[in-house]
Amino acid sequence: MAIIVQKFGGSSVKDVERLKKVALIASGERDKGNKVVIVVSAMGKTTNSLIKLSQDISTSPSQREMDMLMSTGEQVSIALLAMALHSIGVDAISFTGSQVGILTDNSHMKARIIDIDGQPILDALDAGKVVIVAGFQGIDESYNITTFGRGGSDTTAVALATALKADICDIYTDVNGIYTTDPRIVSNAKKLDTITYDEMLELASLGAKVMHSRSIEFAKKYGVVVQVRSSFNPEVKGTFIQEKGDNMEDPIIRGVASNKNESKISVLGVTDSPGIAAKLFSALASENINVDMIIQNISDQGATDISFTVPKDDLKKSLSVSEEIISPLGAKGVTFDENIAKVSVVGVGMKSHSGVAATMFKALSEKGINIDMISTSEIKISVVIDLAQADEAVRVLHAAFELDK
Amino acid sequence: MAIIVQKFGGSSVKDVERLKKVALIASGERDKGNKVVIVVSAMGKTTNSLIKLSQDISTSPSQREMDMLMSTGEQVSIALLAMALHSIGVDAISFTGSQVGILTDNSHMKARIIDIDGQPILDALDAGKVVIVAGFQGIDESYNITTFGRGGSDTTAVALATALKADICDIYTDVNGIYTTDPRIVSNAKKLDTITYDEMLELASLGAKVMHSRSIEFAKKYGVVVQVRSSFNPEVKGTFIQEKGDNMEDPIIRGVASNKNESKISVLGVTDSPGIAAKLFSALASENINVDMIIQNISDQGATDISFTVPKDDLKKSLSVSEEIISPLGAKGVTFDENIAKVSVVGVGMKSHSGVAATMFKALSEKGINIDMISTSEIKISVVIDLAQADEAVRVLHAAFELDK
Repeated sequence: MAIIVQKFGGSSVKDVERLKKVALIASGERDKGNKVVIVVSAMGKTTNSLIKLSQDISTSPSQREMDMLMSTGEQVSIALLAMALHSIGVDAISFTGSQVGILTDNSHMKARIIDIDGQPILDALDAGKVVIVAGFQGIDESYNITTFGRGGSDTTAVALATALKADICDIYTDVNGIYTTDPRIVSNAKKLDTITYDEMLELASLGAKVMHSRSIEFAKKYGVVVQVRSSFNPEVKGTFIQEKGDNMEDPIIRGVASNKNESKISVLGVTDSPGIAAKLFSALASENINVDMIIQNISDQGATDISFTVPKDDLKKSLSVSEEIISPLGAKGVTFDENIAKVSVVGVGMKSHSGVAATMFKALSEKGINIDMISTSEIKISVVIDLAQADEAVRVLHAAFELDK
Repeated sequence: MAIIVQKFGGSSVKDVERLKKVALIASGERDKGNKVVIVVSAMGKTTNSLIKLSQDISTSPSQREMDMLMSTGEQVSIALLAMALHSIGVDAISFTGSQVGILTDNSHMKARIIDIDGQPILDALDAGKVVIVAGFQGIDESYNITTFGRGGSDTTAVALATALKADICDIYTDVNGIYTTDPRIVSNAKKLDTITYDEMLELASLGAKVMHSRSIEFAKKYGVVVQVRSSFNPEVKGTFIQEKGDNMEDPIIRGVASNKNESKISVLGVTDSPGIAAKLFSALASENINVDMIIQNISDQGATDISFTVPKDDLKKSLSVSEEIISPLGAKGVTFDENIAKVSVVGVGMKSHSGVAATMFKALSEKGINIDMISTSEIKISVVIDLAQADEAVRVLHAAFELDK
């Protein structure tokens, strides 16, 4: 008898009709003889109205009280889902993060899980119940309610799968799985049967919004097999995220991703002396700016240029931080460009195959797409190009690496 | 340094503006050097939208899951109120019923308090914080969330006042206190400075909606002094509910109450044999029908009539239950009257003063108001009259007992 953890995100529980659909999916899994644990997020509109209420009261609400407030969203979902299961004759019980002993540190709004008791869930499963757990939330040692920040319910699901030694963690979302690239850009994009944790991590950091990196890291660390699948088409097999691909020889490239939400900042003519980059990026980090690519080329006569990308939302703040840090150091100036896109190819196969970069650059240049920045990892090559050419670049690379085959 | 428990009901926290007002009231009490504990209900519209959601899913939702769902309402209020206090510079912390250890039995939706830990609150008060506690909710021995049913937040407030040995429990509401009668009916109704627990209990059961009987019983049992006062006019002194009146000699009558929400049912020609009334009222009780007055007069030639009143909402169900029970017993029939009102005079003084009933009946008859049923207790006389004459009866009795003096 397998233990299956199912996670349903905001779009899968956005209203009563969707909740009833979720109940049917869980019930179907139980009818196959499995023990089912469901993790749910808040209904989308609940979260928004709670945030609105807090904003009406305070521009900088206490993080502890925000956790107290926001955690009610998942609590509403679990109660309603339990009722929906009862109404189709399935024995079910809901638990808050506190009630199942999801112990975290005390970093409100971005808490990290320390331990999960798990026993209350196993007891309820043994009693024949479907167990519903509130995602995104836990409790610290002083019984304060904590929440996990972005992708929090995925983290709850993977952590529960670990604690319960579940056979699989099904992440239900609004797409059928992980694709070779965005099907809205490339109509013949193919759904992948499997993908490795490392590839998925790269895709997540490159802009694929299906799962948050944190939960994938968690799954990789504890070897939890994750299936990304659709709550709208539950009969369709999804994509399995696991340590190894199914094939003896992995394909060279697994997918193409694009991210249009970044801007580029260049700091020009920086004196090439130790510690300058450290100062700059420490200052950006202390403002919670998430710097993505960083490029520094070889120094030209004692001065160099440093370029980096940041989320578009953080551009203004990043520019002022950069100027403040750089001007006393005698840099020539700071420039920026909002009209960029990052396009990446990802695949563990490229570790053992030379020529991936050459193929990529050649395909782009044949279409007249100019490369502005390049960054590589063992299993990924990213380029920054003109925003207007992003979709074309994705199509070109998808074809060049024969991902539609 | 006094400990003050303040309770704010749904109308006092119905929106963000009212919440900010509540924060100011609590802050003012703290500025006087008091330790302040606040109990809040759910914002009115929150409760309604949660109930709506549950009804969209199930016609008979699980009581445990209803408690899981409904308890989020108060949790939202406490978090927002903490933020509102922070935003005016007051150190404050919110707690759920679970977090402060409000231990109850496991009767979901009508749980009774077994014990309150209190230590988390005392610790926070000692640390200089205003403490905000979610009303209406607790937790049973198995960590299930429970709620208290009608008047639940009042019960939380009184129970906390008991556990913390508070100096007073202020129940903030939308009226200035307890009046000799409804000021909407009698314009010169007077606000009472004090009222005894027993009188308040009678008034509550007679239709005064200010506090629920259960919380008054609790206050009486533990001698908690309660002040009913207005969150809209916090500068006005309210009415103190306590064991004894302030005067050596209590006035004879303290107040006049009317209830227009009941219907009368009469079962005619019941055989006067043991157990018939028991069968009838057991059947009504098992349908959760709250029977109020019951009158059975002396038997006339082996058959008697039994009359009783029930809430108007329960009339239909009560009639069908009565007919089902009575017809096999050979009763002549069941009649009903929706156009009735119950008017009552209340006062501990009547224990030692004869003639109250006579004064009451005389005053009514002088105005041509016919009495249909009479019921008395040690400190109360109630009559059932024609609905159309209810307000006039209240005015007549208010004047007859000189309550405006």
